[in-house]
Amino acid sequence: MIKRKPRRTVGSTRKTGPSGTDASHAAARGGKNLEWLYGLHTALAATTNPLRRCQRLVATQATVDRLKAASAASGVQRPAVETLERFDLEALLPDQAVHQGVAVLAEPLPDVTLPALLERFDDGRAIRLIVLDQVTDPRNVGAILRSAAAFGADAVVVQDRHAPEVSGALAKAASGAIEQVPMVRVVNLARALATMQEAGLWCIGLDPEAETAIAGIGTTERIALVVGAEGAGLRRLVRETCDQLARIPISAQVESLNVATATAIALYELARADQGATIKHG
Amino acid sequence: MIKRKPRRTVGSTRKTGPSGTDASHAAARGGKNLEWLYGLHTALAATTNPLRRCQRLVATQATVDRLKAASAASGVQRPAVETLERFDLEALLPDQAVHQGVAVLAEPLPDVTLPALLERFDDGRAIRLIVLDQVTDPRNVGAILRSAAAFGADAVVVQDRHAPEVSGALAKAASGAIEQVPMVRVVNLARALATMQEAGLWCIGLDPEAETAIAGIGTTERIALVVGAEGAGLRRLVRETCDQLARIPISAQVESLNVATATAIALYELARADQGATIKHG
Repeated sequence: MIKRKPRRTVGSTRKTGPSGTDASHAAARGGKNLEWLYGLHTALAATTNPLRRCQRLVATQATVDRLKAASAASGVQRPAVETLERFDLEALLPDQAVHQGVAVLAEPLPDVTLPALLERFDDGRAIRLIVLDQVTDPRNVGAILRSAAAFGADAVVVQDRHAPEVSGALAKAASGAIEQVPMVRVVNLARALATMQEAGLWCIGLDPEAETAIAGIGTTERIALVVGAEGAGLRRLVRETCDQLARIPISAQVESLNVATATAIALYELARADQGATIKHG
Repeated sequence: MIKRKPRRTVGSTRKTGPSGTDASHAAARGGKNLEWLYGLHTALAATTNPLRRCQRLVATQATVDRLKAASAASGVQRPAVETLERFDLEALLPDQAVHQGVAVLAEPLPDVTLPALLERFDDGRAIRLIVLDQVTDPRNVGAILRSAAAFGADAVVVQDRHAPEVSGALAKAASGAIEQVPMVRVVNLARALATMQEAGLWCIGLDPEAETAIAGIGTTERIALVVGAEGAGLRRLVRETCDQLARIPISAQVESLNVATATAIALYELARADQGATIKHG
């Protein structure tokens, strides 16, 4: 194990040894679960995050100065930036990766457990979590992390077995937000919801069949927003564990919203309701 | 030219002959601008759309019955469904296309011009357009079409030179919405906005620097929502042509929302304001 000084209280329950297809991917990246993170925002955010261990920073000449300046300004010790030709940079990355001339070979962030996360908020202050029930597409999960950062959510909770690994594609869709918003992996989602409820969180499930529109549910300071996969929606036990269900009103001609879009709208609505409440009470 | 009976009043100003890279793509698909549309919702929506000319319908055995049933129920004349092994179906499609066992080889829909579109609404009834200023990523444009359908927008207007072609990737992200929401191509976006204003539309530009939050702008029945590319935002002339600018409030730590996410939130907010207005006036 590598010693590090985490800024946050973190625990680690995840398997450290890669298994299955991960093993071959990790081997191809030189072991240690290293992953290429690419794209300008994604690479800059990783480089300037002191919690993120980076092994190589590569960039085309056009981008190298921006990466160097950001690295220096952050005060984080980094390996020297390698300037590569576009062709050589692309050889390191998956096909059609939209890299914007920059990539970082990085270790995963330290894991955050649900108890450790809730402990940070045990003084009763506001907390907003997003809970994903079997949302498996890495780009959707990345997009949800990005919206979570935009609307000040504190973490995204996923079920370990039914959630994507943090890949380059997920990180790219998150546009730097994986450095800001921790992804917390749990074994059993219904049990995790119960733990959140014990910690005083109100669990709101997004459900197209709900009677109440999301704009009508009011707001509270400690919320877990629970979102299911497109089509399948929330699984029964997860839905039944929620304290309240709410829907986003859409046209009857359309089956569903994209899951990342629905999550963003719900986060927006909760943030809007917060501001309404502030104005009302202030 | 193929004779067709459009359900809608349509005009055609687009070049019918392919050019540039389109030419080679079109040739590879057997000319006629044919495009493979794949994915379950996307293929079902294309198959059941009488305006959509389809040349081949292919599916794996697991999906063929659903496609047949939907085709029959729609009453649209279609070629027989070809049942293919997964491997053979994938050979027809781009790498890593998420096809869900079904694909349709289709011609583009008839073009809709802006004057033809506005003429349909010249009785002064409610109309909601989305105008995209240089949003070039096909998946973002597809996602915007999907949200447009969900929130009842009437069309997505794009600048011909700076908008993606309707590709399989765009259609897949739209999840069937390309059959419902026309994409209207114009030559000059600022001029198109002026045309909309003459037709009584109120042009609202999304701008992170705007003073007014989108929740505060109220609503009106004839709206064009104008959205720029991530990072670049609205070009100056387009921004200055708008009647009003509005922002979606986000965390100061985050640079921007994904453009499709921002558009969906704005559409949601306008729909919510509509309902508020209905309740207030009713």
